Amino acid sequence: MRTIFSHSTLIDALNPGSRPGTSVVVEGKRITQIIPDAVFESQPGDQVIDLNGAYLLPGLWDVHVHPDYHSLTDMPLPEQVALFGHRLQTALLESGIVGFRCAGAHNYIDVAWKRSFDAGHFIGPRLFASGYFLTTTGGHFLTSGHARECDGPYGFVKAIREGIKAGVDHIKLNLSGGILGPSWDLHTDSFLLDEELKAAFDICRLRKFKVMAHATHPDAVKAAIRMGAHSIEHGYILDDECIDLLLEHNVWLVPTLAISHLTPKQASNQWESRWTKQRAMSDALCCRADAASDTHGEWFTKALKAGVKMALGSDIRPLKDAALLEMGLWARHGASSWHTLQAATKNGAAICGVGHETGTVEVGKVADLIVVGQDPLQNINNLRELQLVIRDGVVVADKRRPLHER
Amino acid sequence: MRTIFSHSTLIDALNPGSRPGTSVVVEGKRITQIIPDAVFESQPGDQVIDLNGAYLLPGLWDVHVHPDYHSLTDMPLPEQVALFGHRLQTALLESGIVGFRCAGAHNYIDVAWKRSFDAGHFIGPRLFASGYFLTTTGGHFLTSGHARECDGPYGFVKAIREGIKAGVDHIKLNLSGGILGPSWDLHTDSFLLDEELKAAFDICRLRKFKVMAHATHPDAVKAAIRMGAHSIEHGYILDDECIDLLLEHNVWLVPTLAISHLTPKQASNQWESRWTKQRAMSDALCCRADAASDTHGEWFTKALKAGVKMALGSDIRPLKDAALLEMGLWARHGASSWHTLQAATKNGAAICGVGHETGTVEVGKVADLIVVGQDPLQNINNLRELQLVIRDGVVVADKRRPLHER
Amino acid sequence: MRTIFSHSTLIDALNPGSRPGTSVVVEGKRITQIIPDAVFESQPGDQVIDLNGAYLLPGLWDVHVHPDYHSLTDMPLPEQVALFGHRLQTALLESGIVGFRCAGAHNYIDVAWKRSFDAGHFIGPRLFASGYFLTTTGGHFLTSGHARECDGPYGFVKAIREGIKAGVDHIKLNLSGGILGPSWDLHTDSFLLDEELKAAFDICRLRKFKVMAHATHPDAVKAAIRMGAHSIEHGYILDDECIDLLLEHNVWLVPTLAISHLTPKQASNQWESRWTKQRAMSDALCCRADAASDTHGEWFTKALKAGVKMALGSDIRPLKDAALLEMGLWARHGASSWHTLQAATKNGAAICGVGHETGTVEVGKVADLIVVGQDPLQNINNLRELQLVIRDGVVVADKRRPLHER
Amino acid sequence: MRTIFSHSTLIDALNPGSRPGTSVVVEGKRITQIIPDAVFESQPGDQVIDLNGAYLLPGLWDVHVHPDYHSLTDMPLPEQVALFGHRLQTALLESGIVGFRCAGAHNYIDVAWKRSFDAGHFIGPRLFASGYFLTTTGGHFLTSGHARECDGPYGFVKAIREGIKAGVDHIKLNLSGGILGPSWDLHTDSFLLDEELKAAFDICRLRKFKVMAHATHPDAVKAAIRMGAHSIEHGYILDDECIDLLLEHNVWLVPTLAISHLTPKQASNQWESRWTKQRAMSDALCCRADAASDTHGEWFTKALKAGVKMALGSDIRPLKDAALLEMGLWARHGASSWHTLQAATKNGAAICGVGHETGTVEVGKVADLIVVGQDPLQNINNLRELQLVIRDGVVVADKRRPLHER
Repeated sequence: MRTIFSHSTLIDALNPGSRPGTSVVVEGKRITQIIPDAVFESQPGDQVIDLNGAYLLPGLWDVHVHPDYHSLTDMPLPEQVALFGHRLQTALLESGIVGFRCAGAHNYIDVAWKRSFDAGHFIGPRLFASGYFLTTTGGHFLTSGHARECDGPYGFVKAIREGIKAGVDHIKLNLSGGILGPSWDLHTDSFLLDEELKAAFDICRLRKFKVMAHATHPDAVKAAIRMGAHSIEHGYILDDECIDLLLEHNVWLVPTLAISHLTPKQASNQWESRWTKQRAMSDALCCRADAASDTHGEWFTKALKAGVKMALGSDIRPLKDAALLEMGLWARHGASSWHTLQAATKNGAAICGVGHETGTVEVGKVADLIVVGQDPLQNINNLRELQLVIRDGVVVADKRRPLHER
Repeated sequence: MRTIFSHSTLIDALNPGSRPGTSVVVEGKRITQIIPDAVFESQPGDQVIDLNGAYLLPGLWDVHVHPDYHSLTDMPLPEQVALFGHRLQTALLESGIVGFRCAGAHNYIDVAWKRSFDAGHFIGPRLFASGYFLTTTGGHFLTSGHARECDGPYGFVKAIREGIKAGVDHIKLNLSGGILGPSWDLHTDSFLLDEELKAAFDICRLRKFKVMAHATHPDAVKAAIRMGAHSIEHGYILDDECIDLLLEHNVWLVPTLAISHLTPKQASNQWESRWTKQRAMSDALCCRADAASDTHGEWFTKALKAGVKMALGSDIRPLKDAALLEMGLWARHGASSWHTLQAATKNGAAICGVGHETGTVEVGKVADLIVVGQDPLQNINNLRELQLVIRDGVVVADKRRPLHER
Repeated sequence: MRTIFSHSTLIDALNPGSRPGTSVVVEGKRITQIIPDAVFESQPGDQVIDLNGAYLLPGLWDVHVHPDYHSLTDMPLPEQVALFGHRLQTALLESGIVGFRCAGAHNYIDVAWKRSFDAGHFIGPRLFASGYFLTTTGGHFLTSGHARECDGPYGFVKAIREGIKAGVDHIKLNLSGGILGPSWDLHTDSFLLDEELKAAFDICRLRKFKVMAHATHPDAVKAAIRMGAHSIEHGYILDDECIDLLLEHNVWLVPTLAISHLTPKQASNQWESRWTKQRAMSDALCCRADAASDTHGEWFTKALKAGVKMALGSDIRPLKDAALLEMGLWARHGASSWHTLQAATKNGAAICGVGHETGTVEVGKVADLIVVGQDPLQNINNLRELQLVIRDGVVVADKRRPLHER
Repeated sequence: MRTIFSHSTLIDALNPGSRPGTSVVVEGKRITQIIPDAVFESQPGDQVIDLNGAYLLPGLWDVHVHPDYHSLTDMPLPEQVALFGHRLQTALLESGIVGFRCAGAHNYIDVAWKRSFDAGHFIGPRLFASGYFLTTTGGHFLTSGHARECDGPYGFVKAIREGIKAGVDHIKLNLSGGILGPSWDLHTDSFLLDEELKAAFDICRLRKFKVMAHATHPDAVKAAIRMGAHSIEHGYILDDECIDLLLEHNVWLVPTLAISHLTPKQASNQWESRWTKQRAMSDALCCRADAASDTHGEWFTKALKAGVKMALGSDIRPLKDAALLEMGLWARHGASSWHTLQAATKNGAAICGVGHETGTVEVGKVADLIVVGQDPLQNINNLRELQLVIRDGVVVADKRRPLHER
C-alpha cells in the first residue's frame, strides 16, 4: 500500500525555501516519489492524505535530552520505567520530535526503551542512548540522579566499558561545571584531572564510541576537541581559538541556549514566560543564568557566522516545549528560520549518525515527517501549529481534529 | 460524542442467547442505550460503527495470569518492565482480554503498570495486581522468579504487609505444590506449617485483603476455604466435602485445566497441537500432566454440575492464546459455551470485585467489549474470529482489515 | 534576684476565671508569691516587669507533635538535626509552647535535643521524647520517615527495648490506620495481629513505659485501653463503650481534631484558610478528611460532656500555628475557652507526668508562663496576641517591641 | 535603627595603637561612622551603648580549630551535632571568637552548622568548614575521629571531591606526623607518597579549593609550598629555605605554639597551669612536646622577624581558652601585642578570604567586635577581661553584669 501526502507545501530541509503543490509518496516506511500534485496520478489502493496546503517537513530532532528526573525520588524503578516511556511517546514523538540523543539516564532506561522501540513493541522516537553521564565525585549535575561519579583514569575506563556493555550509542562525558548547580559546580571550572580526561578519550577511541562532551569554557572545549570529541555540548564561553578548532576538526557544537536564557527576567514571549513560571527556579540560579546569558549568546552568534556546524539540543525540562523554546532562542540570536530548522532536522540526524537515512525529505529516506499549519520559515514559532506526526510512514499523532474528538 | 455499535448480534453475558439487530450506544466510556436497530435514531456527530451482524459481547477476562517469566534471566529490569507492558497490550488487550488478575509478578511490575494504565499513560487491560506470590523456602514455582520464599508465621505476615504497602490488590498465597515443577514440588503435597497458614490468613483478614489461594488437593482446598480464601486456584484433586465447602462458603474456583491437559498426547485440535509444540515441555513434566488430567477433569465437571461458582483462568504462557485454550478445555469437559463465556466475562469481573462496573453488556456499565465474526455460543472457539476490541468505549484493536493494511 | 510580673490579669489554669491586679514573684526558676499588686512591696534588686493589665497564664503544651518531616530527603543528618532544634526554639517555644510530647522522630533526634535542653546547652521547650513510632510493615504514616516497621511479637519487643535504651520517655504505638495516607492505610482498619499487640503492651508494662496509643476506631480504642494504654491518640470514631472504658480506666484522650477538619471546604476563619492554602493537600486526602470530620467532631463533643480527661495535641505541621488551630477547633465543637485552655496547659503537663511541677500558675511551681494582650477566656484565639514567653523564670521571647527592633 | 558604641578606646587592628574617645556607629550589620565622641551627635531612636573608656576592637579569629572530639565515643550522632553547635556558640562566639577555620570535623558537622548559621537559624561565629581532614591509612591524628584515611592518588582525589560536594570551604591535607600521637606518628616523618601528594594538590588547584596543609618538618613544608598550599599549619621545624619559600610564594603560616608548649614543666602562668592540669596529658606525650618546643619556638621567632605572614590558630581543646593561650605563647616568643592581635583579627579574616568584609574596625565593614576592660596592647592577656561580644552589629554576649544577674 502507498500513502500519499498530497497538496503539501514541502520544506525538505535540503533545498532552501518551500515548494507548494507537492505530493510525497511513501511505500513501506520510505519515501519513493516527490512530485508536483499536477503530475501525480493515484493508483487503486493508495491512501491519500490531503494536506490542503499545509507545510510538510522532516520531523524534529532534539540532540540534548534528559528525559527523566525521577531517580532520586522513592518511586519504584518499574514505575519510573513506565513513566519514562510515556514521556518519550507524548512529550517527544507526539509533539513532533521524531528523534533524540539522550544526555543521561540512570539504570540504562534509555537503552531499555530504545530496544523496545526497535523491536516494535511500542512506537516511540528514534533514540540514541547514553546511559549514565560520567563526571567526577563532586562533579556536575549530581541532583539528576543519572550522573555516575568516577575517580581516577581507570574509574572512567571502567564506567565507559560498562556503558558499552549495557548498549549505549555514545558516551556522555562531563569535562566542566554548569550554570544551574550548587556553588562548587561552576561552568567556569574544569573537573577532570588530565590523566582522567586522557584515559576517557583513549578508551572511547579504542572502542570506537563517540564522545558527547559537556564543555563549558574555552580550556575544556579545546581539550575536548583535541582529544577527539564528536560534539561539544553547551560551550557557554568560547574564544576565537575554540571556533578555529571546531572548524578545523569538523566537530559539532550543541549550544543549549535555553540553559542561560530562560529566566523570568529574560522571558520575551508567552511560551518563555509560561515555562519560567512553571519551572520556578530559585533566585540564586536565575541570577547565575542571567549573568551567563550575554556571553553565551554572543559566542553562539560568532560560531554561527563562522560556519561551525551545529545541531539543536534543548537540555531543559519539561520536554514538551523544550526544543521549540530552544529554536526561539536561536532566532533571537540571529539564526535564520532556515538554519534553525536544518539544525533541528538534517543536523540532528547527522550528529546521531543517521543522516543518510533520515533528517530530510528525499527519495529513499525514511518517512519521519511532521505537518504544520503555518510557514515555519516565516516564523520558527509556527512549528507550534503542529497537525500531523509521521513515523516510518505512519501517522502517529493527528492534532487536526478538535480536542474533544481526540 | 456518542459511539454506536449498530447491527450487532448482542451476547450480553447476562441473558442467555443472543439478540440480532441490536444497537449499543456508548457515551464517554459507558453504555447508555441498548436498543433494536429498527428503533435507533442517529444524531448529528454520532460515530456509527456498523458491525454488519457480527457478535458483540463483553471483553474477556483471564483471572490467573503470570505475565512475566524473565526475572531469572540477565535481562536488565528496565527492559523487563517495557516487555511486560508490551505483552499486556498485545497478548492480552489486543487479543480480546480486557481484564486480568495477576498470579505473581516480581518487583511489583504489575503494580507499576496498573498505575500507568490508571493514569492514562498507556492503554492496557484492567489489571488486578498480586506482586510476588508467597510460598515457603523450597516451595512451589521457584523457577518463575516471582515467588517469595517466606518462613515462619511472621515471615508470611511481613511479606503480606510489604505487598499491601507496595500497592497490590490481593494476596497470592501458595498452599501446596504443582504439576510442572521439580520432584519435590508435587501437587499432592502441602507446604505450609499450620501456624504459617493461620498467620497468613489472619493478617489478610485484619487488613481486608482477599486471598487468592493456590490449593491443589483436598486438604489444602479445605484448609484454604475454612480460613477465608476468596478463591481456590487449580483444585486439581477435590472431594465431595470440598465441593460442599465451596458452595457453603460461596468461594470461587479457578480450575486452570490447561495445566494438566496441554501435552502432545492429549492435544485434540490444531491450536492445542501448535501450543504443545511451541511449549516443548520435557517428557517428565508431560508425564506428570498426563497422569493428573483425568482426575482434574472429573472434579471440574462435578464442581460445574454442583453449581460451584467458577471463573476462567489459564495459568499458561505464552499469553496470546492462553484463555482461548482454557475455554476449549472447559467445553471438552462439558461446560456449555454459555457457561464458559460467562466464566470468562461476568465472572471474571466479579471475582476481581468490579462486577458492578463491567463484565456484561448493560446500560450503565463501562464499554469493555469485543466483536467476533462467528457465533461463540455455537462453538466457543469462534472467539478466535476476533474483529474489534473496545476499551472504555474506544476501539483499541481492529482486526477486520487485512494485516498488510494495518 | 527576684523577677516580678506586676499588674497582670492572672489566669492560673487552676481556679476558673481571671484575677486582675496580680503580681507574680519568681525567684530562681520558681514562683514564690502570687499577691495583689496593692499589697506587693518591691525590694532593692528586684527586676519588675509591668504587664500593664495583660493576661499572664501558664505556657502552652502540645502533646501530639511530629517536629520533623525531613528524614526522607537527602539532607544530611547533621543538617536535619540543626534544623530540628531551630524549629523547636522558634515554632514551638518562641510561639508560646513551653512543653510538648513527641509523637515520632527518626534517629532519636528528639532524645538528642531533650538532652541538650536539659543540659542547658540550648534553651528550648520541655520535651518528652518518643523516638520512632512503631507500626507494622505496610502500616501507618510510612511517608513520615520516622515510622519503624515491626513484624511479629518479638519484632515489637525489640523495637521497644531499643527505644528505652536510646532514652525515650514513652512508646508511641500505632494500632490502626489514618485519614491522610495511601489507600490501604485507613483509619477504620487495624494493623497489628493480636499477639503483636499483646507483646507490645506486655513489654511496656514490664519496663514501666507509658504507651501513647494511636487508635482511630472503636475496636482499636478498646483494645488499647484494656491492655493499659496511657493515652488514646485521635479516636476519630468512638462508641459509648469506648467512653465508658476511658472513664473507668482513667485514660487520656488526645482528639487531634485538626487532622480531619483542616480542608479548604471546612476552613472557617482566616487562620484555617491560610493553613489549608499553605498545606495544599491533594483532593483525595481532603475528601477523606471531609468524610471523617462529622463523626470525629461528634464523638469529641460526647467525650467532653462525659468528662473524659483530655489534653491538647495538634498532630499537624507546620508547627507554628498548630496548637492554636487545634484550640480553635475545640471551641467550634463546644469546648469552653476555660476547658480548652486547661487542656493546653494543666492537662498537657499532667499527661507528660510533670503536673506537680508546672502547667498551672501556683506558688512552688516552675515559672513557664506566657503573656497575651487580649483575654483568652473571652475568645481562645486571643492567645494569638502573644507578648512574652517565659521559661524557667526567664523571658525568652518578647514580642511587645516593634518587629524592626527585635 | 543605629547602634552607637560610644566612649570607646578604639583598637582598629589597622592603625597601630589605640584611639580613646571614639564613637563607632553601626547601621544594620555594618559600621557606618568612626568619629570622636566630641563630634558625635545622636539622633532620636539611636541605641547608645556607653563603653565608658573600655577597649573596642575587632572580634577574634582562631584559624586552626577542631571543635569536636566525640566521634569515636558511642554518643549518637544527633547528640554530637547538638553539642557541637553549643560549643561553637559558647566556647567560641560568646568567648570573643567571632570567626574560625575548621581543621577537621566528621560527618561534615561543620558544614551543617555553617549552613544553619548562614540561614539565621542559630547565631554562631563565622565558620569556614573543612569536613574530614585527609591523611593516609595509618596516618596522623586517627584518634580524632575526623581523619579520613586515603590511599593512592585517586583515593585522595575522590575524598577531596567528596568534601567539595558536601560543601566544605577548604581542604585540610595532612602531609606529615604530629607531636601528640602514637609512636609511629612522628612530626619528623612524612606520610604521603609523591604521587598521592601531587594528585591531592592537582585536584585542589583544578577545582580552585585552598589547601590547609599540615606540614611539620622542612621537607613537608617545602613540598606543600611548591605544590600550592594556601597555608602551612604547625611548621614545628623549619629551615631558612622554608622561610624564603614562604615569603616568595606569599604563603600563610599558622604556627600553633600551643601544641608543643603546654606541658606542666613549661607552664608559665596561672592559665597555662590550669590548662595542663585539666588536660592531664600522659608523660610520654609531655616528654615529646618538651623535646620539640625549643626548636618550634625558635623558628616561630625567625619567621616572625623575617616577615612571614602569620595568623593565629590554637589547635587545642577545650576551645574556651585556646586562642588566648596561643596568644600568650606568641608574646612569650617575642611577638608584640600589636602583632599578636593583628594575627588574631585582621589576618584571621584574611586567611579565610573575608578580609575585605571584616577583621578590622573600618567604615563599611561588618561589625563583628569585642569590648575588653583592660588594654590588650599593654598585655595581650588583658583580652581575658571580655565585656561584650558583638556579631553583625548585635550584642550577643554581655559579661559586664555579675554572673548571678544574668
